[in-house]
Amino acid sequence: MESDKVFVAPDTLKDLASQVFEGIGLRREDAMIIARDLVAANIRGLDSHGVSRIPMYLERIRRGVVNPQPNITIKKITAAVSLVDGDNGMGFLAGHRAMDEAIRLAKESGIGLVGVHRSTHYGMAALYVQQAIQAGYISLALTNSSPAVPVWGGRSTFLGASPLAAGVPGGEKSDYVLDMAMTVIARGKIRLAATHGEPIPLGLALDAEGVPTTDAKKAFEGVCLPFGGAKGSALAMLMDLLAGVLTGANYGGEVKSLYFDHSEPQNVGHLFFAIRPDLFMPMEEFSHRMDTFVERAKAVPLAQGFDEILIPGEPEERTEQQRRVTGIPLTEEVIRGLQAEVESLGLAFPDFYKLNTNL
Amino acid sequence: MESDKVFVAPDTLKDLASQVFEGIGLRREDAMIIARDLVAANIRGLDSHGVSRIPMYLERIRRGVVNPQPNITIKKITAAVSLVDGDNGMGFLAGHRAMDEAIRLAKESGIGLVGVHRSTHYGMAALYVQQAIQAGYISLALTNSSPAVPVWGGRSTFLGASPLAAGVPGGEKSDYVLDMAMTVIARGKIRLAATHGEPIPLGLALDAEGVPTTDAKKAFEGVCLPFGGAKGSALAMLMDLLAGVLTGANYGGEVKSLYFDHSEPQNVGHLFFAIRPDLFMPMEEFSHRMDTFVERAKAVPLAQGFDEILIPGEPEERTEQQRRVTGIPLTEEVIRGLQAEVESLGLAFPDFYKLNTNL
Repeated sequence: MESDKVFVAPDTLKDLASQVFEGIGLRREDAMIIARDLVAANIRGLDSHGVSRIPMYLERIRRGVVNPQPNITIKKITAAVSLVDGDNGMGFLAGHRAMDEAIRLAKESGIGLVGVHRSTHYGMAALYVQQAIQAGYISLALTNSSPAVPVWGGRSTFLGASPLAAGVPGGEKSDYVLDMAMTVIARGKIRLAATHGEPIPLGLALDAEGVPTTDAKKAFEGVCLPFGGAKGSALAMLMDLLAGVLTGANYGGEVKSLYFDHSEPQNVGHLFFAIRPDLFMPMEEFSHRMDTFVERAKAVPLAQGFDEILIPGEPEERTEQQRRVTGIPLTEEVIRGLQAEVESLGLAFPDFYKLNTNL
Repeated sequence: MESDKVFVAPDTLKDLASQVFEGIGLRREDAMIIARDLVAANIRGLDSHGVSRIPMYLERIRRGVVNPQPNITIKKITAAVSLVDGDNGMGFLAGHRAMDEAIRLAKESGIGLVGVHRSTHYGMAALYVQQAIQAGYISLALTNSSPAVPVWGGRSTFLGASPLAAGVPGGEKSDYVLDMAMTVIARGKIRLAATHGEPIPLGLALDAEGVPTTDAKKAFEGVCLPFGGAKGSALAMLMDLLAGVLTGANYGGEVKSLYFDHSEPQNVGHLFFAIRPDLFMPMEEFSHRMDTFVERAKAVPLAQGFDEILIPGEPEERTEQQRRVTGIPLTEEVIRGLQAEVESLGLAFPDFYKLNTNL
């Protein structure tokens, strides 16, 4: 319930997150990037990929499976392809460097392809395609992740639930921003429901024994079902082949769980494509065609139960507009988790929480 | 029912198809490519994209909306990107030329991106990713098509049902060959059920009024539902943006129906990516990793109702092995359709049909 939540200004939360990551040993500029990214997920309404993850990230840094000060290196393979070594640092850092490189390559070659290995969880995938949109580029962002989805026909986890993201810059109207997990719903949302003790609908997941469940906690320990059955499984497999097998990262079930395994670095793989939108026509014409597409899509007669047609990314854009005014709603549990981390690092927890809650 | 069908040797069918296309005015080499492709779809079990489509293709050529002798041109944009103008010829021809160009670009630049405009329906999408696999390349093949799926929230068709295809060459074990329509089931399968007067399960499609239907004929005139709900719709939209808006082809509902509209050429767009698998490691290592992936996937404990785990493309590969022995099963209706075309072109219909049926 939103009413049980404390609404926090994005900048306040960003400062707090940044201090925490700097406190655990990250470089200041890296801490600021990660803080901005986590808060960006919250602002867009993807609370499952926002500041609620901070205790998990800190735990992984403390246990030495995430390198707080990675030496990220970029190796140019061809005029259109590079490989990034994430040096086991936070995936956000390798991810942004890689998309930046993909854009640079695309500027020259029309398309840029960048593989990433020795990375870790990179948060909300939309971050990277939004980065490309801001630079004026079309993009795809693929990643693998720890096993969360069975391969079609299997009963235990094998493929990641990791999202496929794609971005296409719009003209005067909406950009297209896709960020979709391979599961019926995002695994992070099941995790959040588990944290809150809320049930989930039947059909989203199996428990560890392969039995359908509405218990979010059991579902989080079991398998999420892929969206669209065999088709979702086939796409999730493609993500692991392209982001994992191709890049030299872990693959085929090797990526360790963020929450349950601190035995070694994850060695997550990503694959980024950046494409110039003006390859085949002037940019103005491309932008005009995007606007026309959006106009036409929105003019399609509505199905029952819909008020309007939204372009992928628009719902999150609206949440963002709202939350920039209201602030970001955080649960007491998330706040307590942050407070514990802040205090254990010997930092001051901001006053406004005390004003707004009875913690 | 297979028992009602006539089993025809692939080569016989290929010769027949080739003669028909040559008879309608295509160049001999082009006719042979299209014949090979259509029969390849039948061999893989995708009868909806095989020789049953010949009367439709011939009709479009006769009506002047498909150019029988296109002058396909390739314009190099950068070292990694080209644009193909299909000159309104059969999409198969532009498709193969474009994937060939993508492979050539990838050989030099590591990745090749080729847009195609002024093309038409290009048949089974797996054809193009198999072409890349045979050359040893990873690939993606995107296309748009006539409206068949509503945008999420809409009740009338807007996006194509057109397939997303991807191919990754395996080592000693299976290749990965994805070819999946954006609908719950392929639109061609609904067309085939309509042709046979067979019902379809509820939940696959709406009729022209937006009402769920099990009548394949009504479904074919109505809307197929996207797979995975909003996610399938979002992917279908991405296909139209990348294959249509980006390439300069028709988009946003403009691609005319293959069956119901002969007012103008379709101006279908495609987008092909070819990627060298040895960008980030030696080819041997990549192949070994693919084999390991397949081994691991197949070792996942089975869910109820499954005998084994199959890699995308394996079911079709098995059908191919079987049909290369048994021949391709054709219905009387398909045979009659072919016979009518053959005779109207003044060609001889092969004797074997008369031996095997009571036509």
